[in-house]
Amino acid sequence: MNGTLRTRVCSTVAALRERAPLVHALTGTVTQALVADGLLAAGARPMMTETKGEAPTLVAVADALLVNLGSLSGDGAEGFEPTVEAAARGDLPWVLDPAAVGLAPVRTPMARRLLAMSPTAVRGNASEILALADGGSGGRGPDSTVNPDTARGAARELALGHGCVVAVSGPEDIITDGEQVVRVASGRPVLTRVTGTGCLLGGLTAACLAADAGRSGQAPFDAVVAATALLTVAAERAGDVGPGSFRAALLDALDALDPAAVGEWVSLS
Amino acid sequence: MNGTLRTRVCSTVAALRERAPLVHALTGTVTQALVADGLLAAGARPMMTETKGEAPTLVAVADALLVNLGSLSGDGAEGFEPTVEAAARGDLPWVLDPAAVGLAPVRTPMARRLLAMSPTAVRGNASEILALADGGSGGRGPDSTVNPDTARGAARELALGHGCVVAVSGPEDIITDGEQVVRVASGRPVLTRVTGTGCLLGGLTAACLAADAGRSGQAPFDAVVAATALLTVAAERAGDVGPGSFRAALLDALDALDPAAVGEWVSLS
Amino acid sequence: MNGTLRTRVCSTVAALRERAPLVHALTGTVTQALVADGLLAAGARPMMTETKGEAPTLVAVADALLVNLGSLSGDGAEGFEPTVEAAARGDLPWVLDPAAVGLAPVRTPMARRLLAMSPTAVRGNASEILALADGGSGGRGPDSTVNPDTARGAARELALGHGCVVAVSGPEDIITDGEQVVRVASGRPVLTRVTGTGCLLGGLTAACLAADAGRSGQAPFDAVVAATALLTVAAERAGDVGPGSFRAALLDALDALDPAAVGEWVSLS
Repeated sequence: MNGTLRTRVCSTVAALRERAPLVHALTGTVTQALVADGLLAAGARPMMTETKGEAPTLVAVADALLVNLGSLSGDGAEGFEPTVEAAARGDLPWVLDPAAVGLAPVRTPMARRLLAMSPTAVRGNASEILALADGGSGGRGPDSTVNPDTARGAARELALGHGCVVAVSGPEDIITDGEQVVRVASGRPVLTRVTGTGCLLGGLTAACLAADAGRSGQAPFDAVVAATALLTVAAERAGDVGPGSFRAALLDALDALDPAAVGEWVSLS
Repeated sequence: MNGTLRTRVCSTVAALRERAPLVHALTGTVTQALVADGLLAAGARPMMTETKGEAPTLVAVADALLVNLGSLSGDGAEGFEPTVEAAARGDLPWVLDPAAVGLAPVRTPMARRLLAMSPTAVRGNASEILALADGGSGGRGPDSTVNPDTARGAARELALGHGCVVAVSGPEDIITDGEQVVRVASGRPVLTRVTGTGCLLGGLTAACLAADAGRSGQAPFDAVVAATALLTVAAERAGDVGPGSFRAALLDALDALDPAAVGEWVSLS
Repeated sequence: MNGTLRTRVCSTVAALRERAPLVHALTGTVTQALVADGLLAAGARPMMTETKGEAPTLVAVADALLVNLGSLSGDGAEGFEPTVEAAARGDLPWVLDPAAVGLAPVRTPMARRLLAMSPTAVRGNASEILALADGGSGGRGPDSTVNPDTARGAARELALGHGCVVAVSGPEDIITDGEQVVRVASGRPVLTRVTGTGCLLGGLTAACLAADAGRSGQAPFDAVVAATALLTVAAERAGDVGPGSFRAALLDALDALDPAAVGEWVSLS
């Protein structure tokens, strides 16, 4: 399987470079700049308006949508659901990143409503995936100390119950569509020392889904694996540097990476 | 003309370093950090409050104002017009950057109302300038694939109709006050691979207008050319690096550049 | 005194590394990414939700709170006071950074109300501390040209009147609890050329207060000195580079610094 999957990963990344999809990326203000710069470096184009007044109209010209609950501004709380409705009317692939779901009183029911609107993919850390699947109270803050493996059952349940691909981030990422399961070894521990690398993975996932849209032989599962492969291989290439230097090195690596290298170097199991 | 224009460009940049103008820069949350850091590196001082409750009061202590529609938050949608009114009462130079004007339902009429409030300068990419001038539907997302030359007529029309200087960004920037036209060759293609360099140009334009305020022999046209020269020469000095490294290198170059070097190295035609 | 203070500074920084406190950091959108990345580099964990709907609930799982008025969004204006009330109910240490207090019509009375809610520490530049203490009109924009020494009396008055530690930032930082006074020589002038280093100091102060919570022999004064020591020594280590490179170098230095080195190299008087 992995031989073929590697080929499909290359194919998705090559399509991303060629198509330069416009990704409407709604994410917290903390991480917007990294998500935008990371999408540009990877070959996509970002758009970030989140208000109810504009986002549902503008999403119609995009190729994919990311909804990351992030710090959840008042504008975002009003705008996210109408924007997803508009994306669904346009048949756009979209990614739900249920950041900090669990304890938080506004985003927790909102994440469940968004999940019911059929995302193409869901990306989160283990505690977020557990909270989304079973109503648990989630992590303590935006990070997670829960091992991705403990969320494997929850991920499968979410994927089967909602017809989506689920990606659980951690020291090793786990991706499943309910049937297939793939593990991707993470590039560098320093990924967790830079704010927004998880959000960027959500953005790259939307970009890869857009790149694959309408291409025969590519399933959403492949696109989600390709996005994870792209980020982890770029992190590996960025090298063993401090967290300040790592941000620039990661963007440089996303820009420089050859699609074939992503398929070759990603550690799948 | 260019000999003299070069001299005036040097003079503006030197005045910017000396006066350290306070620039009230309203821009999208995605690009705020780059605009602020770029203004600081160039020798200006940024201030960024956008709410209706505070921005119209605080703009009174600034030396110039930038209004970039950016991702247009709810706070900004309420605060931009009263802030421009307050700036006009104080006779401050101000710059309108009609980001993503065209299709977007809130910012498009707002950009036209702001244009009617007599900005000193307008900066945008070709599709934004076309949309602002003739009611076209604008670009697809924040970037533009329209060649600046196709917006040359629209830029001239805007400049003559509203008594402002218009700058059209692209592979080659075009700047006109309706009579004079200057082209500035862009520093590096990588400028378009880093989020917010266009927004930063708007901020530097406000800073250069403030630097020239009250100086005899300097027209707003000169200040707009100087800002474009400063950014493009800095981009050239930043060198041929990846987009992550480019951000830091651009700021370092803005900090290190000698005013005389800006006038000498800018490519004008 | 300084020998012992140096030992306590080391002890706080070591506790910060070990405890990895969760810091709920409310700050302007301009500086959120630097504050978050700086907290991560120093060994803490950031959380940044500011809305009235979520921040008062989420602060309950944090170890400390920073309230920096920053650009003061509509969300923040509604959320700050209920979040501080919730922090107080949980007995969390919290830091008030009265950014741009003085002239601004919303944040000035808000800063006074927040001050009355008993922050553990207050951090600002000289003009902000003067404005907060005596109702002066504050600085011109976010920076300050007022010498910290002129605010020394105001700092002492605030500290005694409100039972808090006050830190005045400038070329030399002054920290007082009303009885003790310490001066910390600032690391590098370039600190003022990067947006958000003052905000980051507020975040590090909250992190150090959290690190010391419940540890015998450590007073809030020590934690505030430790945070200032950590930032200034890191700035010194970052070296003499341009402002773009400095951002990355500062984060790398915060990550790499040994607690003993902070205590040894900080310039106290």
